[in-house]
Amino acid sequence: MNSELSSLQVRDIGEQGLLKRLQRFCPPEIIGDDAAVVPTEPGQSLVVTTDVLIDGVHFSEITTSGEDAGWRSAAANLSDLAAMGASPLGITVGLGLPGDVSVSWVEQLYQGMTQCLQQYNTPIVGGDIVRSPTTTIAISAFGQVSPLRVIRRNTAKVGDAIIVTGVHGASSAGLKLLLHPELGQNLSESDRATLIQAHQRPLPRLDVLPILWEILEAHHDASLPSQIRIAGMDSSDGLADAVVQICRASGVGAVVERISIPLPTAFNQWLTKEQALEYALYGGEDFELVLCLPKEPAYAFVQQIGNGAAVVGTITGESTVILHDQTQEYPDQDLQLGRGFQHFDH
Amino acid sequence: MNSELSSLQVRDIGEQGLLKRLQRFCPPEIIGDDAAVVPTEPGQSLVVTTDVLIDGVHFSEITTSGEDAGWRSAAANLSDLAAMGASPLGITVGLGLPGDVSVSWVEQLYQGMTQCLQQYNTPIVGGDIVRSPTTTIAISAFGQVSPLRVIRRNTAKVGDAIIVTGVHGASSAGLKLLLHPELGQNLSESDRATLIQAHQRPLPRLDVLPILWEILEAHHDASLPSQIRIAGMDSSDGLADAVVQICRASGVGAVVERISIPLPTAFNQWLTKEQALEYALYGGEDFELVLCLPKEPAYAFVQQIGNGAAVVGTITGESTVILHDQTQEYPDQDLQLGRGFQHFDH
Repeated sequence: MNSELSSLQVRDIGEQGLLKRLQRFCPPEIIGDDAAVVPTEPGQSLVVTTDVLIDGVHFSEITTSGEDAGWRSAAANLSDLAAMGASPLGITVGLGLPGDVSVSWVEQLYQGMTQCLQQYNTPIVGGDIVRSPTTTIAISAFGQVSPLRVIRRNTAKVGDAIIVTGVHGASSAGLKLLLHPELGQNLSESDRATLIQAHQRPLPRLDVLPILWEILEAHHDASLPSQIRIAGMDSSDGLADAVVQICRASGVGAVVERISIPLPTAFNQWLTKEQALEYALYGGEDFELVLCLPKEPAYAFVQQIGNGAAVVGTITGESTVILHDQTQEYPDQDLQLGRGFQHFDH
Repeated sequence: MNSELSSLQVRDIGEQGLLKRLQRFCPPEIIGDDAAVVPTEPGQSLVVTTDVLIDGVHFSEITTSGEDAGWRSAAANLSDLAAMGASPLGITVGLGLPGDVSVSWVEQLYQGMTQCLQQYNTPIVGGDIVRSPTTTIAISAFGQVSPLRVIRRNTAKVGDAIIVTGVHGASSAGLKLLLHPELGQNLSESDRATLIQAHQRPLPRLDVLPILWEILEAHHDASLPSQIRIAGMDSSDGLADAVVQICRASGVGAVVERISIPLPTAFNQWLTKEQALEYALYGGEDFELVLCLPKEPAYAFVQQIGNGAAVVGTITGESTVILHDQTQEYPDQDLQLGRGFQHFDH
């Protein structure tokens, strides 16, 4: 990229100039109306979610490449759809930009978003670009789901297995390595790259949904009503948060087995057991799914998807969420909300 | 409101405290999942639109009441749906808030949004609240439309009548009166209030759609294909902008009759003809619809909706959009884009 191009600022080309450059990231048929028209399949419910990301809070325009910021913001929204059992239909992108943001950063942002979205055949179908003192990315994603397959937080039942679709802690460990490159000297280059990749390029787990439906259909008792009850959410705010949120919403408790929580293999070369567990439970942004379903399909499901998917615990009739150690090295511990949370006062 | 309540700031109660207070504005069944599930009707296409509003650019947290900011932001998005021929299903609200924003301002914002939305039975179905140095409102609205009734910009045909659903210029004149209360001394209190109301509480013209479909069905030649072609957009960026945008997208021209443009009656007591026309053509934010359809249903339509609705011109095969004066007091004038536009450098 020549320096003239990379020094071009948003104020140099204005809203219309910027829109023109960004149109190549959108399907041509949706450009130029007051709103986008998106076809849906009959019999599906609409699912919508929205996220706002702020420079200096959720990313840093200086230390986060536009591509990474774009990928991560698209992935977070698609993960919310996956957590409802929904297939994505499209996203809209609202941008607030200071005049001195470089045009190439904005183009990279769209590049990163579309790189992520393309893996799931999801278009950017609309947006808005406005002047703001603060770089702001507001994404809304919408998808569709059969009303019989909606995954909710409040339907976990006593006896359900709690499963995760992959390892936890990799994203926050990757961020730590980015911020403190001097850490993890024992890590191989490849392990280091894997952790950093987990942070910069998380993958929403839309891929596991067809497998989930298939296994649930296979284990379904035909004499029961056709609705398949499945509880869950994504682990964007950490694994502990996800389990506690599901239990609260469902009015149940849980026991999570410490030893069953899948960790990145690289953690062995770098972290103590306690540190590893801290990343896994509270790190957040792994964008895996945490699901509660009957034991038999649960084991079949984690076996089929592999790659760190695991049964990590059981839903109980208690009011507590207990972290349990079956090797009895550690005493039981209550898991609580409120560690992965963002507040206005810090 | 006691002073303790009105001095409460967002940082005092945090994201979770604020969410709790705002939940009363949302339907209870949609709260607490990763995304909202919204039922749709079979055979309808999804329509989505998004807007970002920035404190100091699109509103002022100091001079705009939370209620007005909320009403206007909801109305602008519903107007985009109306401009596509769509019925609203719901909106999502993303907020970026500095810690020192007063909680009561945010509650008023939601109050204003829901006041507007309730007129159209439209719920707030989700959102996100994050910390930001700049108060930011990102709204996405989604609706549904029969694929046969989508209103697009690029389908105007030579010979179509150009109609507007109401008077133009009232909103920008109302803003002028708010900013300069010393103006318009000849105006009655009621005229002044009407203009200010047009600015603070614009009404998206979702109400005219059922009338439009009814008239088009009545005028429809049963031997033709069932799709009813109708071009249009809303006049949020001004009437001139709307006509020029439709003509560009459709590859046609237009003649707009100066004398046919409906103006607020109050303008007679206050503005010269030239000033009045300037407000009507370039003021913007009237949120009326500008539609192009065959002459016969066009006249029936404006007659039925009344209240300032009018045929203002005709689509031509030329490449220009001409403002014409049939009284010949003024020479023909070319209408151009680029006067109602927001740029990054001012």
